Amino acid sequence: MNRNLCICLDFLTNAHKARIQTAAESAGFTPHFFTTDQLEQAAACLQHCEVLYANSPKLLRRAPNTLRWYCCSNAGVDLYCADPTLFANPDCMLTNSNAYGVTISEHVIMVTLMLLRRMPEYEQFLQRRSWPSPLPIRSIRDGSFTLLGTGNIGSHVAERLRGMGAARILGLSRSGRPVPGFDEVLPISRLDEALPEAHVLILSLPSTPETVNLLSRDRIALLPRDACVINVGRGTALDQDALAEALNEGRLAGAALDVMVPEPLPEDHPLWQTRNLILTPHISGNMSLGYTCDLNVDLFCQDLANYAAGRPLQSLVDRSRGY
Amino acid sequence: MNRNLCICLDFLTNAHKARIQTAAESAGFTPHFFTTDQLEQAAACLQHCEVLYANSPKLLRRAPNTLRWYCCSNAGVDLYCADPTLFANPDCMLTNSNAYGVTISEHVIMVTLMLLRRMPEYEQFLQRRSWPSPLPIRSIRDGSFTLLGTGNIGSHVAERLRGMGAARILGLSRSGRPVPGFDEVLPISRLDEALPEAHVLILSLPSTPETVNLLSRDRIALLPRDACVINVGRGTALDQDALAEALNEGRLAGAALDVMVPEPLPEDHPLWQTRNLILTPHISGNMSLGYTCDLNVDLFCQDLANYAAGRPLQSLVDRSRGY
Repeated sequence: MNRNLCICLDFLTNAHKARIQTAAESAGFTPHFFTTDQLEQAAACLQHCEVLYANSPKLLRRAPNTLRWYCCSNAGVDLYCADPTLFANPDCMLTNSNAYGVTISEHVIMVTLMLLRRMPEYEQFLQRRSWPSPLPIRSIRDGSFTLLGTGNIGSHVAERLRGMGAARILGLSRSGRPVPGFDEVLPISRLDEALPEAHVLILSLPSTPETVNLLSRDRIALLPRDACVINVGRGTALDQDALAEALNEGRLAGAALDVMVPEPLPEDHPLWQTRNLILTPHISGNMSLGYTCDLNVDLFCQDLANYAAGRPLQSLVDRSRGY
Repeated sequence: MNRNLCICLDFLTNAHKARIQTAAESAGFTPHFFTTDQLEQAAACLQHCEVLYANSPKLLRRAPNTLRWYCCSNAGVDLYCADPTLFANPDCMLTNSNAYGVTISEHVIMVTLMLLRRMPEYEQFLQRRSWPSPLPIRSIRDGSFTLLGTGNIGSHVAERLRGMGAARILGLSRSGRPVPGFDEVLPISRLDEALPEAHVLILSLPSTPETVNLLSRDRIALLPRDACVINVGRGTALDQDALAEALNEGRLAGAALDVMVPEPLPEDHPLWQTRNLILTPHISGNMSLGYTCDLNVDLFCQDLANYAAGRPLQSLVDRSRGY
């Protein structure tokens, strides 16, 4: 008797479905495909499935206690880790998808250049139809960069910064383990030492109890005046009020937030009017690029083979640790 | 008796002056340094000089007919080529400075990503404090790029696109000679063939009689609907009215102009209100980055040694050709 696999995702092409079909068959599974507008049908099917590949807390909540593996197509799974009631089976394995490093790193390179080249200030001039003289700018070439988070996203960012001639790339991670592409990696416990030299600080951290408010008001005060802060991880990692104050008072050069608290940002939120702040509506990683979708499917198929063979899952999340 | 060299530039540090002093002495020259607010003193000194290193048509006009070499610190020298009356000595050699490739290529990478990732559209949403769903975007990774101009700027752009995973980089140049970093280089005479496949078209051409209106109304009509056009060369290279119409009518996806006609853009110019157009006030290359200034001085010193030894100047401009 075949085992059943429920898939509820909107980005799959026919080629992706064929790829999953083949991987499922060789692992002894029958895949059942749904899109997110077919939630009821998916939930009915899910009752007979031991694996779910989706990104839907709503659907997960409908899963029976026989669900053994939830493969989330997202990279950030803080939502799933924070709420154990989502899982009827407390031992259900959770995996995430580190498929977003390339597209998010392109976003990071874009906003890094926009901040170093002072685009928010130029835009102020141009909105008034005024034509300023060149402002002193900075460059990726010969620059120094501090990356809080050395995972999939941080590594792709480091590779691109290096390719454009960055002089020094410092990483900070929980373990402080060396990572290819970084000149040095420090444990996050040494963050306070690194901040006074962080001229460009790039955050790509998951939201966990340890990362919430990591860049606190006190730590923002340690940054140099020319610092630019970029956040593409989770909005909880920094003290938004303190960041906005520092920007408005000129104690920081600029910032680019793709993630914030809350999302969407309410109409009357002070971040909308913060000086030298580039806001984007959580778009740095999304499913519109073919290579992101391909990798997402590939990572799932690899772990499906691992699952069927009883091997550990590559993308397994420690639900208590949060990533 | 020492020969005299007049330098009138604002960006020189003491280290640059020392470097020039050393190079001048070993070439048998005495350098005389001025800034642009000392034009009268510089003009007086210039009467006894055979070499001028500056970027000032005003000062050049005051030079005697014994001036043998004008080293312009700019890359674009169309102004000097178009007006022979600037040179009292019709045989005066003109050199330019290809010191801007790195900084201009960082600008190009920035606006390329801004266009592919639809930042002008996101900014429209955010100005209304509205929070859109992710729009389908494109990427440098796996993308194809068409570079009109394969010189210093084009080569640096190609290197960075390649480093970020571009799939295909086509160059077009006057000669069509192969250039490292490009998959293929075609002569500009084959431009009409290349345009229907130019999804991202990057212009870094000098202004010469041959490049004026090269991207004409008819040629803009050959571009695909998803085309993004970036110009960092000279504004004369394209038909601005036709470009603006194509953008406003949705026949092109976007454009980024750092150069335009005229500069500064008058307050009532239609470009200010053109859809999906990123305007910057001719800032892609400027003298605020140390490495640009260093290279500018190095290139001058190298050619000063060539000049003193009677060798051909590396950066010599063909005044009739315009670059």
